[in-house]
Amino acid sequence: MQRILSTELAGLVEKPGEKVTIAGWVHRRRLLKSVAFLIVRDAAGLSQVVVTDPRTREQLEQLPEESVVEVTAVVTANEQAPHGVELTAPVIHELSRAAVPLPFELHRPALGAGLPAQLDHAALSLRHPTRALNLRIAAAAAKGFREALEAQRFVEIQTPKIVESATESGANVFKLDYFGRPGYLAQSPQFYKQLMVGVFERVFEVGPVFRAEHSDTARHLAQYTSLDAEMGFITDHRDVMAALTGTVAGMLGEVTERTGYACPEVPAEIPAVHFAEALRIAGAPADEPDLAPAHERALGEWARREHGSEFVFVTGYPMRKRPFYTHPDPADPTWSNSFDLLFRGLEIVTGGQRLHRYEDYVEALDNRVGPYAGYLDGFRYGMPPHGGWAIGLERFVARLTGAANVRETTAFPRDLNRIAP
Amino acid sequence: MQRILSTELAGLVEKPGEKVTIAGWVHRRRLLKSVAFLIVRDAAGLSQVVVTDPRTREQLEQLPEESVVEVTAVVTANEQAPHGVELTAPVIHELSRAAVPLPFELHRPALGAGLPAQLDHAALSLRHPTRALNLRIAAAAAKGFREALEAQRFVEIQTPKIVESATESGANVFKLDYFGRPGYLAQSPQFYKQLMVGVFERVFEVGPVFRAEHSDTARHLAQYTSLDAEMGFITDHRDVMAALTGTVAGMLGEVTERTGYACPEVPAEIPAVHFAEALRIAGAPADEPDLAPAHERALGEWARREHGSEFVFVTGYPMRKRPFYTHPDPADPTWSNSFDLLFRGLEIVTGGQRLHRYEDYVEALDNRVGPYAGYLDGFRYGMPPHGGWAIGLERFVARLTGAANVRETTAFPRDLNRIAP
Repeated sequence: MQRILSTELAGLVEKPGEKVTIAGWVHRRRLLKSVAFLIVRDAAGLSQVVVTDPRTREQLEQLPEESVVEVTAVVTANEQAPHGVELTAPVIHELSRAAVPLPFELHRPALGAGLPAQLDHAALSLRHPTRALNLRIAAAAAKGFREALEAQRFVEIQTPKIVESATESGANVFKLDYFGRPGYLAQSPQFYKQLMVGVFERVFEVGPVFRAEHSDTARHLAQYTSLDAEMGFITDHRDVMAALTGTVAGMLGEVTERTGYACPEVPAEIPAVHFAEALRIAGAPADEPDLAPAHERALGEWARREHGSEFVFVTGYPMRKRPFYTHPDPADPTWSNSFDLLFRGLEIVTGGQRLHRYEDYVEALDNRVGPYAGYLDGFRYGMPPHGGWAIGLERFVARLTGAANVRETTAFPRDLNRIAP
Repeated sequence: MQRILSTELAGLVEKPGEKVTIAGWVHRRRLLKSVAFLIVRDAAGLSQVVVTDPRTREQLEQLPEESVVEVTAVVTANEQAPHGVELTAPVIHELSRAAVPLPFELHRPALGAGLPAQLDHAALSLRHPTRALNLRIAAAAAKGFREALEAQRFVEIQTPKIVESATESGANVFKLDYFGRPGYLAQSPQFYKQLMVGVFERVFEVGPVFRAEHSDTARHLAQYTSLDAEMGFITDHRDVMAALTGTVAGMLGEVTERTGYACPEVPAEIPAVHFAEALRIAGAPADEPDLAPAHERALGEWARREHGSEFVFVTGYPMRKRPFYTHPDPADPTWSNSFDLLFRGLEIVTGGQRLHRYEDYVEALDNRVGPYAGYLDGFRYGMPPHGGWAIGLERFVARLTGAANVRETTAFPRDLNRIAP
């Protein structure tokens, strides 16, 4: 099919009379008395087609919005039209006709339908520019993640999504029938990425992870895209934080470059506060074991006020609140060599240094290595000090775009109540 | 940790006497009478350390192969050593000690262990250069896939891996408990990528797919990485084949650039034969419904002999052997607008034009849309003619590298008998 994109019309302003073919969706029709306008939407944008011929108008009247058409017409300059060009004397070829009525309209600036209706008809609602933009931002962020890490010698890996035992916690794991035996959907690529540090020193993975979240919130999904990285030969978690800082900057840079979306600046050194100090800043009791959402918000405000930064690291979370593979702070093992990265007052990244000696794992697990034996075997063959992080892509995009619900940042969300479409 | 990589030693040939720190794995020790050699392996390559000091030698004797060390030593020119430099007067700092004995040795050119032992101790076997190279090739191929498609306006998507019903066939699908209801692991992103053509016109996904293969062969995995693409506004499957040809060329180009692995050339136009002609070339009866492995091999030999090409397209497979979403050949609906791409006599890509009108799906399914209702709803809102393909990454890498078993091209394979590590 020889067609040009709507954005290519701009280059034809000086070529009136030229015949071109465009193709796309019937975005909107305006059927006036003496003339009809057809707005065609393609992946790049909109084009305006002017219909005066009575037969063509009759044809257009039969083509509901979202039908797919190919239009061959004549380039005519018009400063009012998109790209300064409108198309006249069209021949419209119908490629497929949309069913009527549509469950909701797409041509208004905001989608009128509520979120449940949008999700029920995702194939339609995602065509709206506001919804499509979030997915373009997600794609650009993933690309920026990979490119920033490749520039830092990280190698991409693919790891199993069906595992023998829960990695993070047995509570929110999906169970399946694996050739007659029990299997589980991986909650993270945690152990695999650690083991692969033994092969490539630095690795990353962009892939789905699964959490059987039994509560229905605006920030949790049963499947989300995890941007994981892990690196060896570190001194401690601060080396990981430095690599992450450059990576987040690369992600936001790519988002702006590819989508034009205005992103906040990432400081060369993101402000970092120890957990104990974070509690003081947030006005929380000194014996709190973790940060509540209100504390995270207070820290976000503090970072903006004191450092002009939308980002802030909280380091050294108490060991008892971090997973067993976390490396303790050598100076005081109450605390850990871990961190969270808050973005606008919400945790979007969790990371830290991990244990790297087999015997330390055995001790951390109180000798009950049973369910982890298959993974931990690899730690017996020499592993360097290492650490890494995981970013939830959908939550990152929601925070960036201000989406109220993480379901607005993924195409076909999965949750407690939703397994289709 | 301030360290340099083994490959950076080459730049220090002219700086004898300089003190440097390297870090990595004890790849090999050679304990001679008057001197000992320590070969350190890092992600970039090997370094040679010369030990003459008796105390350091004693320390080295206690460090089995695969232990992790940091070595600070003096640069000394030696044409025989890797990168023209050896490191003398070392101070060795042990980072972690490997367990003894290792299940197999890593320092020989070929891995001595059989495949089952390699897979049981994947975290160790993958450190061998031959195994690690396959994974580097896979990473480069995935990168080349994404970059070639982004250059052609494709947008990356993420789709659900837990679905309501089987996409391809109910026979080899994994079933799971989804919040008390039945759910299934996606066998492909087929319908999702098609629906997303309605949003972005051109989309791709790199992600895991799941097949409960009940037979234990050298070419099947229960989880593999599928490189999927789908594009709208095509005339027919030949537009898809052209996009795929450029994409495969991009993949192999990236593999050579990033790993140095010598890849075959992809012709600007890959030879294509219709299924009926393919049967004749392969010497198969004219009423065969599909190509057997021997036929594929014969076609591969024919393409090399007649066209000097390692690749050949077979087009127009009989409709009865293709999935219900396949678009028939408008000239003769016995045949389909589909194709397979054979690489060195083995199918590595399946693709074609799909149905794009809702009513055609209803007819193809004999009015039994039931299990597909959630997906097909999207086809009611106007879809352009479209098509796409899926490449199995592991099988592609196996064909490229000559690996006898697809399990040699993935880090932690899953099959009928294996769910760990």
